[in-house]
Amino acid sequence: MWNDASPSRNTQQAMKRKAILRAAAIVFTRQGSRGATLEDVAGSLGVSKAALYRYVVNKNELILACQEEALDIADRALSLGEETGRTALDKIRIGLTTYLVEMIAELGVPALILEDNALHGAEAERTYEKRDAYEMRMRRLVAEGMADGSIVATEPKIAVFMLLGAIHWVSKWYRPEGPWTPAQVAHAIVEIASRALDADPATQLTTCLDPATADHQKRKEHHAF
Amino acid sequence: MWNDASPSRNTQQAMKRKAILRAAAIVFTRQGSRGATLEDVAGSLGVSKAALYRYVVNKNELILACQEEALDIADRALSLGEETGRTALDKIRIGLTTYLVEMIAELGVPALILEDNALHGAEAERTYEKRDAYEMRMRRLVAEGMADGSIVATEPKIAVFMLLGAIHWVSKWYRPEGPWTPAQVAHAIVEIASRALDADPATQLTTCLDPATADHQKRKEHHAF
Repeated sequence: MWNDASPSRNTQQAMKRKAILRAAAIVFTRQGSRGATLEDVAGSLGVSKAALYRYVVNKNELILACQEEALDIADRALSLGEETGRTALDKIRIGLTTYLVEMIAELGVPALILEDNALHGAEAERTYEKRDAYEMRMRRLVAEGMADGSIVATEPKIAVFMLLGAIHWVSKWYRPEGPWTPAQVAHAIVEIASRALDADPATQLTTCLDPATADHQKRKEHHAF
Repeated sequence: MWNDASPSRNTQQAMKRKAILRAAAIVFTRQGSRGATLEDVAGSLGVSKAALYRYVVNKNELILACQEEALDIADRALSLGEETGRTALDKIRIGLTTYLVEMIAELGVPALILEDNALHGAEAERTYEKRDAYEMRMRRLVAEGMADGSIVATEPKIAVFMLLGAIHWVSKWYRPEGPWTPAQVAHAIVEIASRALDADPATQLTTCLDPATADHQKRKEHHAF
């Protein structure tokens, strides 16, 4: 029909679903998933709550879908790291940098920060298991790095908590409309956080992300606390 | 009266206020400050909402009071670091370690994670200014460390974002009822995060926080994602 000039019904559905996930990720990040409502998500898309209900059963399903998407991105990014990194530390670096860049591209936020027990129902259990599996993968990579000589002797749990804290916190201070590109931010934050584990740490880090615009950042756009 | 055997009315008021702040900090951390209600805070104290209203005007006032307390602890901890640390990196280490330990002792949580624009009203502006002042102090210390040779060449903003991310994220995985003491956790996380900046990084970090109980940690009690 129409020689495929207009996207098929299925493609349109998938595109709308993607737009909803993206809007939801941003609203949940800014307002918290418990505080935000489906109306807030609908409002940010400029549609009615009724229109949203054609694609979404309830808020819990939407939180789950965002978290699933984030975990899929994290898994794929880490697989890329494992395929292309030379040392375990390289694998972690590629995995985390790719995760941040992909998250900003796909969901519009660098990471999802959920409240405790934000997920409910039977599917939540599966998502928590996926999250735990990702963390275990990260911990194994830290141990692998201790064996291959790329990572200093450390407690893998603490190392992974530290890395994921630095990564998740990007959502609290990074604004895509600011002067730093996703790639710049991802590189700089992974570079410094991963130096904490590096058996052969660089003697110099990126010192100037964007000299011309550094002073133009507005107070509330970049804060860390 | 009663020979001071029972605390004075003022002391009792102050103690109750402290108990409320502590309960609120925990509820806000677990549920998000937007998602949580004053009923949730009252419920966690085992009192009625009406009883709470004798001490608190509304939820916004309580969020502000928690954030003010956290910033006061952060400021005092950093002052202690500045008074007792030899290098700028030592100052940062003492400041962050003390902050984590004090926060857990005073508010029952390692750090407060607030949603964007969680604070409202005229007082909020003052609190945001205080938070910005703390961040500026931290950034100046990073610059000081680059000058005194204790910190590698880096972008102070990114360095502070990374450190505060690692510190705040402790709230997402640390449970006081778990096997790690506040001092152990504070030491281990600050040790590894600050190594990222260290001009003379240790070749070995704390490798084993608590070998006997490491496997007893329940899945949902310690997760990083």
